[in-house]
Amino acid sequence: MSISGVTRTGTEDPVVRVALLGCGTVGSQVIRLLREHGDDWAARSGARLDLVGVAVRDTSVPRDPWVPPELLTTDASALIDRADIVVELIGGIEPARGLVLQALRGGRTVVTGNKALLAAHGPELHAAVEAGDADLYYEAAVAGAIPVVYGLRESLAGDNIVTVAGIVNGTTNYILDEMATRGLSFEQALQQAQALGYAEADPTADVDGHDAAAKAAILASLAFHTRVSVDDVPVAGIRGISAEEVSAAAGAGQVVKLLAVARRTTGGVSVRVHPALLPDTHPLAAVRGAFNAVVVEAESAGRLMFYGQGAGGTPTASAVLSDVVAAAGHAIRGGHAPRESAYTQLPLLGPEETPARTQVQLRLVDRPGSLAAVAGVYGEEGVSIESVHQQRSDDGSARVVITSHIATEASLARTVERLVTESRVQEVISVTHVEGE
Amino acid sequence: MSISGVTRTGTEDPVVRVALLGCGTVGSQVIRLLREHGDDWAARSGARLDLVGVAVRDTSVPRDPWVPPELLTTDASALIDRADIVVELIGGIEPARGLVLQALRGGRTVVTGNKALLAAHGPELHAAVEAGDADLYYEAAVAGAIPVVYGLRESLAGDNIVTVAGIVNGTTNYILDEMATRGLSFEQALQQAQALGYAEADPTADVDGHDAAAKAAILASLAFHTRVSVDDVPVAGIRGISAEEVSAAAGAGQVVKLLAVARRTTGGVSVRVHPALLPDTHPLAAVRGAFNAVVVEAESAGRLMFYGQGAGGTPTASAVLSDVVAAAGHAIRGGHAPRESAYTQLPLLGPEETPARTQVQLRLVDRPGSLAAVAGVYGEEGVSIESVHQQRSDDGSARVVITSHIATEASLARTVERLVTESRVQEVISVTHVEGE
Repeated sequence: MSISGVTRTGTEDPVVRVALLGCGTVGSQVIRLLREHGDDWAARSGARLDLVGVAVRDTSVPRDPWVPPELLTTDASALIDRADIVVELIGGIEPARGLVLQALRGGRTVVTGNKALLAAHGPELHAAVEAGDADLYYEAAVAGAIPVVYGLRESLAGDNIVTVAGIVNGTTNYILDEMATRGLSFEQALQQAQALGYAEADPTADVDGHDAAAKAAILASLAFHTRVSVDDVPVAGIRGISAEEVSAAAGAGQVVKLLAVARRTTGGVSVRVHPALLPDTHPLAAVRGAFNAVVVEAESAGRLMFYGQGAGGTPTASAVLSDVVAAAGHAIRGGHAPRESAYTQLPLLGPEETPARTQVQLRLVDRPGSLAAVAGVYGEEGVSIESVHQQRSDDGSARVVITSHIATEASLARTVERLVTESRVQEVISVTHVEGE
Repeated sequence: MSISGVTRTGTEDPVVRVALLGCGTVGSQVIRLLREHGDDWAARSGARLDLVGVAVRDTSVPRDPWVPPELLTTDASALIDRADIVVELIGGIEPARGLVLQALRGGRTVVTGNKALLAAHGPELHAAVEAGDADLYYEAAVAGAIPVVYGLRESLAGDNIVTVAGIVNGTTNYILDEMATRGLSFEQALQQAQALGYAEADPTADVDGHDAAAKAAILASLAFHTRVSVDDVPVAGIRGISAEEVSAAAGAGQVVKLLAVARRTTGGVSVRVHPALLPDTHPLAAVRGAFNAVVVEAESAGRLMFYGQGAGGTPTASAVLSDVVAAAGHAIRGGHAPRESAYTQLPLLGPEETPARTQVQLRLVDRPGSLAAVAGVYGEEGVSIESVHQQRSDDGSARVVITSHIATEASLARTVERLVTESRVQEVISVTHVEGE
């Protein structure tokens, strides 16, 4: 933001004009916090934050009592032209994309929580930042109040990150936690999450992993100084997870979590979202309910974890306000948001190069040689086996749990394809990734 | 740092001159990382980082092989005058203080990991920053690689922090962890920590809590936008913790941790360092060995936790390098370290106003009325009791554990003073703070 855009009124603090696009749960909390703590923001940034308008689709919808009706407008584009800082909380691609591009190209500062937009159109947004000599902040786009965007974008600039693994979707973590602690089925836990407002009426974006994939793309781009789009991220959600699988994991000292995992290897970067088994001693295993956490492994720093509330109106508004205060401070005292850092241009690894481990549960014909046949399939696909646990079932079949060493996604997939057609395999009950030491 | 201080050489990246003061464990790692990953730092900051000298006390001491002997000098003051960024890793007050003040007053950027200097002379350093229009970064001063200084100084600027509670000394956490998990006495665990290099030959600064107190002062200053000196922080260390106390805690579902705790109340700020009992479900209870973690409770964000390695050459060097890369980026692209934010000028609470809870273990004369007498002391001092657990001992006395509700430090101290002289109390075995829900 150009300091020339700042209005100075006599001996008072200079004024920075803030426009809000969208007035849902988060936007309403941003308005409340702007109004309740104005003196704090002024003392910290050197500027008085003046909310000049709130763009909404329908001005007649009932709002929280602190939302000033006279500031509501349906003309977002005209509002942008009256602002120094544009806070975009509309979500989704359009009209958010067009409005954010307008603001950036016009040299304005944009603060957004829009993970879908960033993960699908990041390069276009960063090009608009350059074109407009503008600034783009997006702490609220990943993991709500947890300052992990700041962490990766700024405070770990002097280290080389090896892995980022996170629980970045509270809805799915709540569902998996309820399944683990109360023995619910996926459907039961989902209904409960919907009743409590943790899950949307259409839960697709959460339970199928698309929300986590967008965040994974953003985290990987920041961590590895490269470009990762949400389209580059293979996704598996949690619909297929059964109560039995969760309870078997608990019996084996493990938990099932939906993880966003990004790794840097010598060959490039792999970014994926999938349910995974973690040992219950892993720091992410203790992340309960709707909380989020991100574990970063860096060459010098070793393991770091950032933990907190990943969603909700007030926590997400905290991240938005922090970006707004930082932006206002930069406007007054000089400085900018970091520009896109994508200098490594690392290749994205395909399944033949992506390292992975799985745990496969099978039901085998209980005859001599069945296990040898299965082990033979693993061997022929070049997958080493770490452990095999076999139990006799009531129906005379044998239930076998096979955990692999690290192999590639492709060889593990081929192994499962062959197991499905192997005559001594009655059923492939589940295939789950394994993460953590 | 003024951009005019940057040397531009033709079409190459501009050069930022870095001087290192001190070449111990951390300093040596900083040199290694500067040399091994120069291209990364240049790509991220826009500047080539040129190490122009390393000030040491004695140039003849053997060094790691990557330390260039030709860069060693004993004239730190002259070296400073040749640098844009001065990295101070001498530690302690003098000569570090004089050299840092020289650099700041000369308009140079200082990156320091010197918690003792910051906690004792913060206002003087910040005044020198203003006088020289300089920049001061100190991520490495608190909790090593964990970006909690960044978190409090920048990424939570849009929230109001209520509590900061942290395990910020790895030595004492290692000792307490060994006492808890292996039943060692304090002396045994300390000797082991010394043998492994986790504790110094003179362990005073760690085990008596002074290192943690300096960090507590820095964290509280940042969290509450006020000034807190290490002299304002009451300290109790871990020398008095017995193996019995640690094992009794474990039996009650608790752990003993040395905590730095800073709280904002309506009346002001309290900052303290003391051993405390935490329920084993508290996120800090799971912090093992020499790891550090800081829990921040903020009005909007709720509970956040930052976790990682709090000490060691390489993790601390990660924090130093990140500050250096950020500072170089600011030199090239504009921007500054945040200036001191001390606008709240909150009063520091004395013991009569500081909220606290304790757990007291007593041995009582096993006669009717003993417990009533003890409870009477609590009542007369205005301290409510949350729970009482009584056990008969083999020697005919009764062992009683009394946990209070929240009272004040002063009333809890008066209660203990009176218990010591109460005729039915044979012994006050231990008095420990209680933190967490």
